[in-house]
Amino acid sequence: MENLLENIQTPADLRTLPVGSLPALAEELRAYIIQVMSSHPGHLGSSLGVVELAVALHYVFDTPYDRIVWDVGHQAYPHKILTGRRDRFPSIRTLDGLSGFPTPFESEYDAFATGHSSTSISAALGMAVASKLKGETKRQHIAVIGDGSMTGGLAFEGLNNAGVSNSNILVILNDNGISIDKSTGALSRYFTKISTSRRYNNVKNRVWDRLGKNETGKGARHALSRMNGAVKSLFLKQGNLFEALNFRYFGPVDGHDIPTLVRTLEALKRIQGPKLLHIVTTKGKGLKTAEAEPTLFHAPGQFDSRTGELIKPGINLSLAPRYQDVFGKTIIELARVNPRIVGITPAMPTGCSLNLMMKKMPERTFDVGIAEQHAVTFSAGLAADGMIPFCNIYSSFMQRAYDQVIHDVALQKLPVVFCLDRAGIVGEDGATHHGAFDLAYFRPIPNLTIASPLDERELRNLMFTAQSGRYGAFVIRYPRGRGVTPRWKTPLELLPPGQGTTLREGRRVAFVSLGHIGNTVIAATRDYLHGIGADWDDARQGPGLFNMIYLKPLDTALLAHIFAHYDVIYTIEDGVIDGGLGSAVCEYAAAGKARGEIRRLGMPSDRFVQHGSVEALQHQCGYAKQDLVEIMRREM
Amino acid sequence: MENLLENIQTPADLRTLPVGSLPALAEELRAYIIQVMSSHPGHLGSSLGVVELAVALHYVFDTPYDRIVWDVGHQAYPHKILTGRRDRFPSIRTLDGLSGFPTPFESEYDAFATGHSSTSISAALGMAVASKLKGETKRQHIAVIGDGSMTGGLAFEGLNNAGVSNSNILVILNDNGISIDKSTGALSRYFTKISTSRRYNNVKNRVWDRLGKNETGKGARHALSRMNGAVKSLFLKQGNLFEALNFRYFGPVDGHDIPTLVRTLEALKRIQGPKLLHIVTTKGKGLKTAEAEPTLFHAPGQFDSRTGELIKPGINLSLAPRYQDVFGKTIIELARVNPRIVGITPAMPTGCSLNLMMKKMPERTFDVGIAEQHAVTFSAGLAADGMIPFCNIYSSFMQRAYDQVIHDVALQKLPVVFCLDRAGIVGEDGATHHGAFDLAYFRPIPNLTIASPLDERELRNLMFTAQSGRYGAFVIRYPRGRGVTPRWKTPLELLPPGQGTTLREGRRVAFVSLGHIGNTVIAATRDYLHGIGADWDDARQGPGLFNMIYLKPLDTALLAHIFAHYDVIYTIEDGVIDGGLGSAVCEYAAAGKARGEIRRLGMPSDRFVQHGSVEALQHQCGYAKQDLVEIMRREM
Repeated sequence: MENLLENIQTPADLRTLPVGSLPALAEELRAYIIQVMSSHPGHLGSSLGVVELAVALHYVFDTPYDRIVWDVGHQAYPHKILTGRRDRFPSIRTLDGLSGFPTPFESEYDAFATGHSSTSISAALGMAVASKLKGETKRQHIAVIGDGSMTGGLAFEGLNNAGVSNSNILVILNDNGISIDKSTGALSRYFTKISTSRRYNNVKNRVWDRLGKNETGKGARHALSRMNGAVKSLFLKQGNLFEALNFRYFGPVDGHDIPTLVRTLEALKRIQGPKLLHIVTTKGKGLKTAEAEPTLFHAPGQFDSRTGELIKPGINLSLAPRYQDVFGKTIIELARVNPRIVGITPAMPTGCSLNLMMKKMPERTFDVGIAEQHAVTFSAGLAADGMIPFCNIYSSFMQRAYDQVIHDVALQKLPVVFCLDRAGIVGEDGATHHGAFDLAYFRPIPNLTIASPLDERELRNLMFTAQSGRYGAFVIRYPRGRGVTPRWKTPLELLPPGQGTTLREGRRVAFVSLGHIGNTVIAATRDYLHGIGADWDDARQGPGLFNMIYLKPLDTALLAHIFAHYDVIYTIEDGVIDGGLGSAVCEYAAAGKARGEIRRLGMPSDRFVQHGSVEALQHQCGYAKQDLVEIMRREM
Repeated sequence: MENLLENIQTPADLRTLPVGSLPALAEELRAYIIQVMSSHPGHLGSSLGVVELAVALHYVFDTPYDRIVWDVGHQAYPHKILTGRRDRFPSIRTLDGLSGFPTPFESEYDAFATGHSSTSISAALGMAVASKLKGETKRQHIAVIGDGSMTGGLAFEGLNNAGVSNSNILVILNDNGISIDKSTGALSRYFTKISTSRRYNNVKNRVWDRLGKNETGKGARHALSRMNGAVKSLFLKQGNLFEALNFRYFGPVDGHDIPTLVRTLEALKRIQGPKLLHIVTTKGKGLKTAEAEPTLFHAPGQFDSRTGELIKPGINLSLAPRYQDVFGKTIIELARVNPRIVGITPAMPTGCSLNLMMKKMPERTFDVGIAEQHAVTFSAGLAADGMIPFCNIYSSFMQRAYDQVIHDVALQKLPVVFCLDRAGIVGEDGATHHGAFDLAYFRPIPNLTIASPLDERELRNLMFTAQSGRYGAFVIRYPRGRGVTPRWKTPLELLPPGQGTTLREGRRVAFVSLGHIGNTVIAATRDYLHGIGADWDDARQGPGLFNMIYLKPLDTALLAHIFAHYDVIYTIEDGVIDGGLGSAVCEYAAAGKARGEIRRLGMPSDRFVQHGSVEALQHQCGYAKQDLVEIMRREM
């Protein structure tokens, strides 16, 4: 086997190869991704699916002058490897290593930072319009977007606007039928219908063959437009949605067939105006286990690069459960008793463990697709007619539905329970995925109760408290990963809103925490006390620790006690430092003339936290365990 | 003329009338709306357009058991009048009067609160699913949505999900070609294409006639499905977008023809599953001037109910300009010099005065339709390729694009200038439209510069400062209505970020303000000083006044001065009290051990502010001029 990949430093090198070599290059690229990912975990499945597309795009288009926007961005690994980052690829998602997503700060080939879904069409259109204004009429602008991302309303807004621009934009619909879980919704069915019509495909192939012989500008355009017409009038039972939006629609074509991709893209380059190429790909392509179980292999962790078998750590029964599983199991437990409970997720049933309820109670569980806004307003509609919807959305994706929480839920005092998974620092996924802002952006909203559990039991009990519907709209935010309590399934208890708990009393310094990060404070305090030979129960030594549970309503009685008995108050939250718990405590102190210095710990508000391990990033922000021990040593 | 309307207390009364009387009733209803609106200003045009639809819906459906969700909600006046609120209708939009929008707190007929666009499909779907879960299979759920609102991504997300539910949902597309300004985008063109095909309309009419003779369940279904097929295969040049999303599509029909509407709705009632009825209406129907100038008559203020002529207050040259016009004129001034500047609005060119630039520089001005998310990401794409986009979005609508500001703009440090019009209390539009949260939700975001001008000159200068691109993403928020400076067009000056100004020094009490509300503080101080016979220039009397201009970066030097010289610090902002300026000052004080009591004035965070005049609402919140004078008297 030749070693083609080694000689590709930039796409310019790629373009020196004959088309006939590209499939071999793609195989090397795929093998390299599999090899690296097997020991350096990342987003495997999506990237394997677009190996051929990435090769073809950089072969045909003049990147970085031409612009490629990779929607969601975790499909960008082959693109990164082809654009000068091959050697650094094993550093992906680690501290100071490559980002798991495209980012212009990393490479000029990354035209736009992506991490959340459905942004690519709007961004590429913006670039296309900018090019037009600057008179750069030859520049090409390509958005690569999956069928899952296409369900996000932003993508539709982009199409609607692009359809009336006469800008040079090519949307490539990468249709693999999978988001992370299986794609849902009418659009997904529609794509399936298009791409499985055999009769249609036969004719399509003939037309594409003809196109191959006519590769001059006019000929290509003519053949394409004829094919397009043929497709429309003869073979589609349903009208073409994209044509309705004034896009010229081409495809579907096999997204793993490089010669066809190259030929098609070359032809499309010469067609002005908004156009969409529908390609069909297989998520996880080339790794049998990943093709068979695309959800599992979306981001599989370590695996055997030859067999594709996952390398599972030995089962450790003493491990605490993941918060998401506590959510997934508890909602079933609650829903068995309370018939009003329903579960809603925007395309994350596996990620948030609502798939557990989906299996047991399919009629009461709703995966609405990548559509956070709709997930919230749909929940509001359910609640308006008597249901108690548990709407589970990752904290950073909840930013997408901010207005809907305010306007459709809080304003109407509807009892929707928002479970915000992945709140706080999430680690390797980095800046686009940290759940940094939720406490700050929700606290000013009237009619919201906002809570964060210290541990699994509190999560259960908060869910139990929320499901009564008595407290209106209810936000429960908890982090990615595991809790601290292997035996977490204790009897359900009400946690009265606005009531925190005292974890221990101490002297001089108090730590006021919200949520799971309180466990870090506890661990740091144990280390500190151990270091000075003192006991946990000795209130004359070490700091006082207070677990607020609720950000809103705030436990002002507990704060009054804290300010009365401590000189220095540290607030600590796994979220941005301005606007959340720390600010609430400052406001309390300023209003009540409470004495005491307040020091706020949390994520900075003057820079985005990047990627790396959770602990390393917490340390960067100054609230990892070691930082807290250091503070205690300095302050006590 | 009979007096039908007087006898309609609820829709039950309506249902006792023969169909033949409904057109006369509709005319009375229309006349009543015109008469009341001529002296009690409100949203005229949209409501006039749906008079017949409202009558037909309440006639055919069993409201309030059946659910009607009126998208955007300002089209709900006829609905309100028919559902027990006829006598209170003249109180609409005034303090303690009827809300200008549907709200369940006002009537059980208002199934869902609406004010922002594009929510109705998701909400109605939620209700439909709730009904199904409760076994209420006969209940009907209707979303009435305009063609403008249909461009919002949330509407698309709702359609995509509804298409695969087998829930009982009817979407009525009210197609009038107008949002507030003319509808834009590919979807709008598509609707026009459907509804203007003459050949299509002829056949449609024949099919509808046949349907009329077959009004039993099976017959209607058969006839409808045949018509539907006929429409699809013969007459539409482009495929039907809604059918692609698995909706059964019916129409278009004349939305002012009550007998046809009644017959059609009766037939649709018997068809299960997701269905869409496309009706064509005229915005402002029945008032010639409103039909001719729908944008002007969207919410026209007072007019002569007979002639339809607007009653214009005498031109007063000494009036200060509206902030929106200062924006609209200044962007042209800046864009003439800086070729990188472009203007973007999501469907509000007239409302934000970007229409001025649209006329002068059409190729550099973009109305992207009701699509706030896209407006922001499109701006990000423009900025990524070298433009300086001024993206103008009303403060409360900016909530729709929160994630896009964080993820697509701030994260990439792109120089997009966000101009947030209608920030703070907006008055009569009420809870859904106040720009309450922007300062609080933007302050925690890294890489944002956030400013608010005291007056027109500062708005100009902030725009000038922002357009350099040197300060990255830049937020400028300003209120609805007029400024204070008739001669506002002064030479442009840089306002260095993080630098506030001293308006006057005083004794003991300081007022720290952000934005236009500082003028209220100035006026109150003048009143107070006048009351004690003191001069503005006498620093020994009255409070110190400080105009921060920037919320982020915060002018800590000015704050240090204030805390050093004053005992009581009032912060005042025309926005929610938690998270914004007041919180920033509390954080500053807590961190720096600054002494001094801090009292925060602003909108509450424990309840939504309702509708009424700006001054009355500011007084409710405790920061109208009279409240400030009272504070000064008490504190000095």
